[in-house]
Formats: sequence, structure tokens, C-alpha cells
Amino acid sequence: MPPPPTAALSSSSSLCLFPFSSYSSPKKTQLGFCPSFPFTRLTNVTPTRRLMTCSAVSIEKETLISYRPHSFLRETDGLDDGSVRSRFQRIIMEVQDSVCGALEAVDGAGKFKEDAWTRPGGGGGISRVLQDGDVFEKAGVNISVVYGVMPPEAYRVAKANVTDQKPGPVPFFAAGISSVLHPKNPFAPTLHFNYRYFETDAPKDAPGAPRQWWFGGGTDLTPSYIFEEDVKHFHSHRDERRGLGGIFFDDLNDYDQEMLLSFVTECANSVVPAYVPIVEKRKNTPFTESHKAWQQLRRGRYIEFNLVYDRGTTFGLKTGGRIESILVSLPLTARWEYDHKPEEGSEEWKLLDACMNPKEWI
Amino acid sequence: MPPPPTAALSSSSSLCLFPFSSYSSPKKTQLGFCPSFPFTRLTNVTPTRRLMTCSAVSIEKETLISYRPHSFLRETDGLDDGSVRSRFQRIIMEVQDSVCGALEAVDGAGKFKEDAWTRPGGGGGISRVLQDGDVFEKAGVNISVVYGVMPPEAYRVAKANVTDQKPGPVPFFAAGISSVLHPKNPFAPTLHFNYRYFETDAPKDAPGAPRQWWFGGGTDLTPSYIFEEDVKHFHSHRDERRGLGGIFFDDLNDYDQEMLLSFVTECANSVVPAYVPIVEKRKNTPFTESHKAWQQLRRGRYIEFNLVYDRGTTFGLKTGGRIESILVSLPLTARWEYDHKPEEGSEEWKLLDACMNPKEWI
Repeated sequence: MPPPPTAALSSSSSLCLFPFSSYSSPKKTQLGFCPSFPFTRLTNVTPTRRLMTCSAVSIEKETLISYRPHSFLRETDGLDDGSVRSRFQRIIMEVQDSVCGALEAVDGAGKFKEDAWTRPGGGGGISRVLQDGDVFEKAGVNISVVYGVMPPEAYRVAKANVTDQKPGPVPFFAAGISSVLHPKNPFAPTLHFNYRYFETDAPKDAPGAPRQWWFGGGTDLTPSYIFEEDVKHFHSHRDERRGLGGIFFDDLNDYDQEMLLSFVTECANSVVPAYVPIVEKRKNTPFTESHKAWQQLRRGRYIEFNLVYDRGTTFGLKTGGRIESILVSLPLTARWEYDHKPEEGSEEWKLLDACMNPKEWI
Repeated sequence: MPPPPTAALSSSSSLCLFPFSSYSSPKKTQLGFCPSFPFTRLTNVTPTRRLMTCSAVSIEKETLISYRPHSFLRETDGLDDGSVRSRFQRIIMEVQDSVCGALEAVDGAGKFKEDAWTRPGGGGGISRVLQDGDVFEKAGVNISVVYGVMPPEAYRVAKANVTDQKPGPVPFFAAGISSVLHPKNPFAPTLHFNYRYFETDAPKDAPGAPRQWWFGGGTDLTPSYIFEEDVKHFHSHRDERRGLGGIFFDDLNDYDQEMLLSFVTECANSVVPAYVPIVEKRKNTPFTESHKAWQQLRRGRYIEFNLVYDRGTTFGLKTGGRIESILVSLPLTARWEYDHKPEEGSEEWKLLDACMNPKEWI
């Protein structure tokens, strides 16, 4: 496995789902690049690299289709021409198949429901949801391909000296896979992962300027209870040393593109072996009503993080992304109690403590 | 009852909780005035009146206190000097008492838990929560008083020709009561209300400029099932003619201040007679698991609106408001199903339809 060149470890803070987003600084008004493909989290955006406001990007309304297309690429992109766009699209389709297959096998009863859609100007997506299975409360695995236009600042900041004149909007391409898996058993952790590839064209009035590309993504574990052996298994598999969360990276373009494509592919292919053994081990662990209530409170916290802080979710909802695909990341059920505080030293307290105070797991 | 001079009716759209917020236009980057007192919704902010970014306002960390103070005003404001600040604070304290008393009487079993806090530089609040009662799943009634500093644009736009020089930050005072009441019975509607009073001082480097003040607030009903007689009762009481929601207003300062204080007081005092008879009538209505499941899905929608779009909630969370007080607006439990669609013509469908297509109720 190639080394993760600029991959960063997530801290196990209470903000552990979004370790690198800028939400923790209310003073920041400049947002990172927020393509609105459904159900995708954008973390670790380097503010000095991609300065722009989300509000300048929007996408067309989607149309549900009754078949599953082989490609969402525009015809002008070529259908299977060996381009990175095309190859990355094939990779995320294959990962969606393999992850969904593995999850159905673990669940035994639940089956994924599939919705596919396209957008008039190109792009589209496939949402797959397994709901109320024997093992999974809700599991969503989505892929999407977006053609859009973003403000020029992103491009200008990345390549600062291209031109002195103010360039026009920058056409972009984004493709990604994104998933949140919520098991029923309170001892089986929630998993989130997403992997994505971006390309920008040259700004419209600077045709000679070079095209930009980068990869992003990550995988993170959100347990309600900590089993150190599970967390160690998860991190060992990824060769990571720290953090309850996992890995996250963005703006990954400073190595050979082929190598990075392999790296991201391997990350995506690692989801099943990193996660499925943990669910297998915990899916039938006996639990009490009190364990379940704690899981429901943590689900509530997951929703808070997702709807309030997750830039991909909020941006997708506000710019016309497919609402049902975006919100499939939410658990089936959750609970909010006023000022709930677990007893110090309890298993519930240990989880909270690990979320607030980063820890070396291996 | 004085006429509501600039009060506007909420539409019964799917966005019925936040009829006048600007979230529906993703292009807008200028936000309205967002003081961060906990658990307050700011709707109907006129964008041309108060242009500023929320990110420029923040408040100090609160300190829990073990007693209930008579006033959160700074000593320099005088303790009970007949000022509108002082009188409005007394009004919201009295409304908090009367609403909580009425709700405990309806519930029969549940009692409000009270938390009070202050902030070092002045201001503070009292949160009251009744959780898992016989009638109410969760009922929060909060008051708060905030001293803060906001950017000068708000003041400048309101009084455009005061000065040509760029003024400094504007000290402000805000006080309000805010509440969300979630009954257990799916046929008893959720209620939200908040009433608030603002004052700005003159900008720091324009001492001769006049002080500004305004009132805001509203009350709205969010049923899971529609009983026309209940909606009519609710609106009749307020002498309103349209909308599932109720009334909302902001920037209310173009009438005599005494008259507006009376108007807002009467609005706040109308909450109990407008709402309690509906809960009394519906609290023991028999219901099935399917009714309860629909209520839980609507609770999920309530949470989506509250956490994603509600400017008061998101701003409060991001600028250091008291998290537990802000999130007390969330129901105890909720549910999200992928792509749930009620059967056309069913009672559930009628509610959705009324939320999407505004209707005359009286």
C-alpha cells in the first residue's frame, strides 16, 4: 500500500466526525469548496487553498430514472476512454457493489433498495439504502457524479500567478462514493466513509491555464461503546496509529496521479475488511434497554454533527441536492435528553471521554 | 388588542417553521441580525435593514448558578427603573412562570427542571425543561438576556445618513423568551413561540447617533395531523386569517414603543389560551402505532428544519451559546425513513399537502 502522502489522522474529540472542518471557528466566513454531491462530507479543506463561498455553486434538479446507467459522464467526456474521471467512476461503482454485497451478507435479511437519477446537463447518482434489516438499522451507500461551476477564487488561489485579470467561473467535475452505516446493536459502531475525485477546467476566460485535479476522502468509526480491540483492528488495518476516527484527507494532488488513484482505491476497498469483522463480532452481543438508550442519545449527537456542522450535508440541502439521498445518512431513530450526563467511570462516560480527549489506540 | 402593525402571516409551506428566513435562497450570503440568545428563532429579518454576518458576534461562556436571580441586567442599567429593558425582562419572566404553570397543570405528572446561568459581562438566562411527562414528551421554556457587540452595518443601514465615516462595532442588548412544546399524543400539535426585544447603542465612534430598538417574535403550530377546528381555534384567538403556522414579525419599531410593548406582551400572554385547550382536547385521543410512527417522522422533519435552517439555533451553536438550552427545542425521540411517502388522500398526506400548499383556515 502506498503511503498516505498528506493523509491526516482524525482526533478523537467530541467533534470526531469532522476533524478538519472549520466549523469550530465561528469567526471564519470563508468556506472551503463544497460541491453538492449528495451525502458527502467535506473535511480537511485547507482554507488557504480553496477560498470561496458555497453559495456560488448550485446544481440542476435531478430526474429519477428507472434503469441503472453504465456511466453518468457527459458524452463529450468519452464513455470508457481510460481517463481518470472514467476510471474513478468505475471504481466507485465497483466499491458500491462490493460494500452493499458484504453488508447484505452480514445482515442476512435486509436488502438494499436502489434509486438512480440523472441531471439534464450531465451527471447523476445511485442511492442504495438498506433500512430496518436484522443487523442494520439504516445503511446508505451512495455514488454521484456532478458537473458544476464554481467561483474563480478556488482556482486562482491554487495557482496564484496565472493571470492578473479577474477570471470567470470555473467549470468542475466531481465524483464520489459516500456512506453511513448504522447497526442496530448498540455495541456495533456506526461507520462513515467517502472517497471523491475533483477536476476543474481552466477558468472560462483563461483557456491556456492548466486543469486542476485532486482526491479527497476518509473513513471513520463512531462507536457508542468502546471495545479497544475493535478500534485497534480498525486502525491496524489502515496502518494508522491514533484517533478514534480513522483517516481523512483532501487536496491530495502532490503525488503522481496514478499512485493517488491506487491509494484512494485501496482506501475504499479497505472499508469492508476494516469494518465488517467488527459488526460480525458485535451484532449479536446481548444488550439492555439502558445500552440501547445510550446508543439513541449518541445517534442524536450524530445527527447534530451531521445537520449542523457537516458542510457537505448543509450545502447539499441548501443548493438543491437530492434531499432523500443526503438525509439517508441519518439513523432510523434517535433521542435527545436535556443535559444528559453519564456517571463518571461508566462505559458511557468512557466513550464521551475518548471523544473529548484524544487517545493513542495502538 | 392593538393591530399587529408589520406582523406577517406565516405560510403553511413545508418550511412553515421559518416562513421568513432567507435560507431558501442559497445565493444569499448576507445574513440578518443573529443575536445568540439560546433557543431563539430569528425569522423575518429584513435583509435590507440589518446587513451583517453572524460570524462577527459572539458571547462569553456562561456560568451555572444555583439561585434564580431577580434580574440579569447590568447594574448600570438600573435594577427596576421602568426602562423598557427592565419591563420587558419582567414580562418574559412572568410569561415563563405562567406558561410553565399551565403546562404542569395540563401534564399532571411532569415537573419543570430549572437551570439558571449568568455571563461575566452581564446577561444570563433561565432554562426550564419538562421531560417525559404524562402529556409532554419534551417541553422547554427559556428566557435569556444578552449583552453583545455587533458589526456596524446593522446600525448604518437602519440609519443610513448618520455619518460618512465607517463606524465602530455596535453594542447591543437583547432579551427574549423562547419555547418549543412537544406533546406525546400524535394528535396534539407541537407549539413554538418566541418574543424578543433588542436595543443597540450608538456606534462607539458616533456617540451622538440615536439608539435603535425593535421587537420581534411569533407563535406557530406544527401538527402531525390536522384537526381543522384546532387550527381555527388557534388562529381565531390571534385574529389571524391564514397559515398553518401563526404569526411572525421582526424589526417592529414603527409604532409607539409603549403600544408595541403591550402588543408583544399580549402575544406572549396569548400562548396559553391559544394552545392549552387544543392539548387538553387531544391529549387522551386513542392512537395506533402507525399514528405514532408518523408523528416520529414529522419530529424528524422538525429537527431537520431546526438544525439546518433555523438561524437562531445554528448561530447559537456556532458562537458559544449554551448548547443544552439551545437543543432543548429538539423532541425526545424522532425517526427518519428513506423516501417515505404517505398514501395519497390519507390523513398523513393531508398534513403534508397543507404544509406545501398554503390554505385559508378561517
